[in-house]
Amino acid sequence: MKTRGIGVIGGGVVGSGVVKILRERAPALTRAAGPFELIGVAVRDLGRPREGIAPELCTSVDALLADPRLDLLVEVAGGVDAPFQWVSRALEAGKTVVTANKALLAERAEAMFALAQAHPGKLFFEAAVAGGIPIIAALDRGLAANRVVAVQGILNGTCNDLLSRMERTGCTFEAALAAAQAAGFAEADPTLDISGGDTAHKLAVLATLALERPINSAQIFTEGIAGITAFDLAWAEQHGYRIKLLGIGRFSEGHVELRVHPTLIARTRLLSQVMDELNAVQVEGDLSGPQLYSGRGAGQLPTASAVVSDVLQALRGESLLRARPVPREPPRQVPMGEVVSRHYVHLEVIDQPGVVAAVARALADSKISIASMFQPDVAHGSQVPLVFTTHPAPDAPVQAALDAIEKQSFLAGAPVRIRFEQ
Amino acid sequence: MKTRGIGVIGGGVVGSGVVKILRERAPALTRAAGPFELIGVAVRDLGRPREGIAPELCTSVDALLADPRLDLLVEVAGGVDAPFQWVSRALEAGKTVVTANKALLAERAEAMFALAQAHPGKLFFEAAVAGGIPIIAALDRGLAANRVVAVQGILNGTCNDLLSRMERTGCTFEAALAAAQAAGFAEADPTLDISGGDTAHKLAVLATLALERPINSAQIFTEGIAGITAFDLAWAEQHGYRIKLLGIGRFSEGHVELRVHPTLIARTRLLSQVMDELNAVQVEGDLSGPQLYSGRGAGQLPTASAVVSDVLQALRGESLLRARPVPREPPRQVPMGEVVSRHYVHLEVIDQPGVVAAVARALADSKISIASMFQPDVAHGSQVPLVFTTHPAPDAPVQAALDAIEKQSFLAGAPVRIRFEQ
Repeated sequence: MKTRGIGVIGGGVVGSGVVKILRERAPALTRAAGPFELIGVAVRDLGRPREGIAPELCTSVDALLADPRLDLLVEVAGGVDAPFQWVSRALEAGKTVVTANKALLAERAEAMFALAQAHPGKLFFEAAVAGGIPIIAALDRGLAANRVVAVQGILNGTCNDLLSRMERTGCTFEAALAAAQAAGFAEADPTLDISGGDTAHKLAVLATLALERPINSAQIFTEGIAGITAFDLAWAEQHGYRIKLLGIGRFSEGHVELRVHPTLIARTRLLSQVMDELNAVQVEGDLSGPQLYSGRGAGQLPTASAVVSDVLQALRGESLLRARPVPREPPRQVPMGEVVSRHYVHLEVIDQPGVVAAVARALADSKISIASMFQPDVAHGSQVPLVFTTHPAPDAPVQAALDAIEKQSFLAGAPVRIRFEQ
Repeated sequence: MKTRGIGVIGGGVVGSGVVKILRERAPALTRAAGPFELIGVAVRDLGRPREGIAPELCTSVDALLADPRLDLLVEVAGGVDAPFQWVSRALEAGKTVVTANKALLAERAEAMFALAQAHPGKLFFEAAVAGGIPIIAALDRGLAANRVVAVQGILNGTCNDLLSRMERTGCTFEAALAAAQAAGFAEADPTLDISGGDTAHKLAVLATLALERPINSAQIFTEGIAGITAFDLAWAEQHGYRIKLLGIGRFSEGHVELRVHPTLIARTRLLSQVMDELNAVQVEGDLSGPQLYSGRGAGQLPTASAVVSDVLQALRGESLLRARPVPREPPRQVPMGEVVSRHYVHLEVIDQPGVVAAVARALADSKISIASMFQPDVAHGSQVPLVFTTHPAPDAPVQAALDAIEKQSFLAGAPVRIRFEQ
């Protein structure tokens, strides 16, 4: 059998993990998938030595893409615009591409999947979602006979770590972030994580498989976790819930619902028990019923191990089943305003006559039915939390009520609104 | 592309589910894997009409195996000896086989995998373990780059349902079994489930993949759940544990540990939170770290959906990576007597002078270190539970101490011994 040439773009943490596995496990990998050769690793700075990557392997992207031995390109560089150019060139030249780049897949979904469809090379991306958890294999193969009905994922380890820290210690979001940064569980600039953007990227990839149609993350309603307070976590604990940032997709005949936001999940659900930096995805197939997959969503070796599992599939000449457009009417995307949930709202108010009446009036005006309301007894005139939960209601009127409440002079801060997830 | 002929042996619950999915989803399945045709369903009684299976499809095993159109045999009949003959004939004739039959794989492991190895047809068995949960795909593909270090599985829905019922209601094992039988969660003859035998079958299949070497379930130490009492579940709850029947495999360089028995698992672990009839498998890859997969482990459509996912892989000409012997020294199987755990022991004793001294003496004679001991205050001479836990100790001396204790006249029943699982 012909020896296939593998080129890697990216000599960082994941790239050097991939190189290490391909080198150290070559005999077992060859036995599983046939002979291969690592022909080069494209790095930004050719002068800088890299741990675990032989200097003579280091090369430039252009040299790697021009190498006639190249059969399979592994892209683990990160970014969107430059990787899109590289991956496009490789696919157009008939090469197979393995990428861990969720932003690339999610922000260039249409173009990426069209390119893969139009050329003989294949596209693999197991490592793009939930690191070492084989969620792509589960959706694509394990559930191949199923229609995917729903996914709910804890897809960002940083957010899950922050919420777990806040719950454990009762600290503020800011303190949890500082501690997570010190412990290496949060980036120096954590914006993409805490804004929900990274979760939206991963949800877009899962939805692309579930719908067999490219989904761009720009289509996804996205809300982050920076507004969550220690009070909200304590309320959740007292009432039998946990707060998790979820990427949620629901797929029914002709309708699709996609959203990323903090949720209240009952502690009786397995998904609520996934703590710290771990990831988990609940997937519901129409035949299989709900299933949960949990594990490490990041880290050098878990991610590199997912990349190498794709490399093996690629070397064996296999391809994904669901990662290509299916000729079918596009489903209607349900706008966020129409999505129905129960809501938790936490207001900080100055205790004065008429506060509860004004809040209740705003809700009544929007036809929102109150399920519970709570305000502790405090000295008149001090700041106090006022919490209410609603019966199931569409998002738009709840938002309208919150907008009306926000105009009130008794409000001492931005409302916290968290949707319950059944 | 040539239309491939699929034959099914078994017209029962799973078989009719497979037929239903192949019929109702033919367009999507064909798009994914190419054209196929269901050529026949071998049933025991040709005269009896079957829901969802057209009478003209019903045939005999011999006619099905002799049909020149047969490319792919689906075996969902159950049993061991007869299916072994059928599957052997099919493999020897170069056909590919998809089976859901864990007993067949586990009790004829060596022969089954040798047959698959020696002939051009492939062998698939996703549905044999944990029903609709794609655990075979996860081990074989998702974790293809990993060495599997450990598996711990809740692999029998009946046992998990019984233990969940006992915990929830405080009832006896016998009452839980009667209720589960009435609710359809336990067979009329539940022996294979509650003895741990079914779990051992499934563990053997998982170990075969993990070790890349056929493992027979007869090699597995197996203990069931019939001895567990309501007292033990209450003790576990009070001390932060749950009792689960686990199939446990640990795989290290040169050593393998395989066992099925009730375990005490800390409630902080996700695996302990898997309740009722659900299954779950925790798998640890040396690169990926621990991962948990959970979902329905039985039922018509979850199981049939796993069978059809195998059918699709087979139609696409793929094969499992790990399901064939690897040329390598066989690992040493650690005898149960050498397996080290912490132990919980519950004795029912007649309260009289010298009981604690005799128990402590038996443990000391076996060099077992007591971690905790508890006996409630009762009227002298009545029956009372005496509970102790040990520090980590090998199984053999703990068993020797229990044998010595069993000879004592103050014992009012068989000791309950449960191993802790870290």
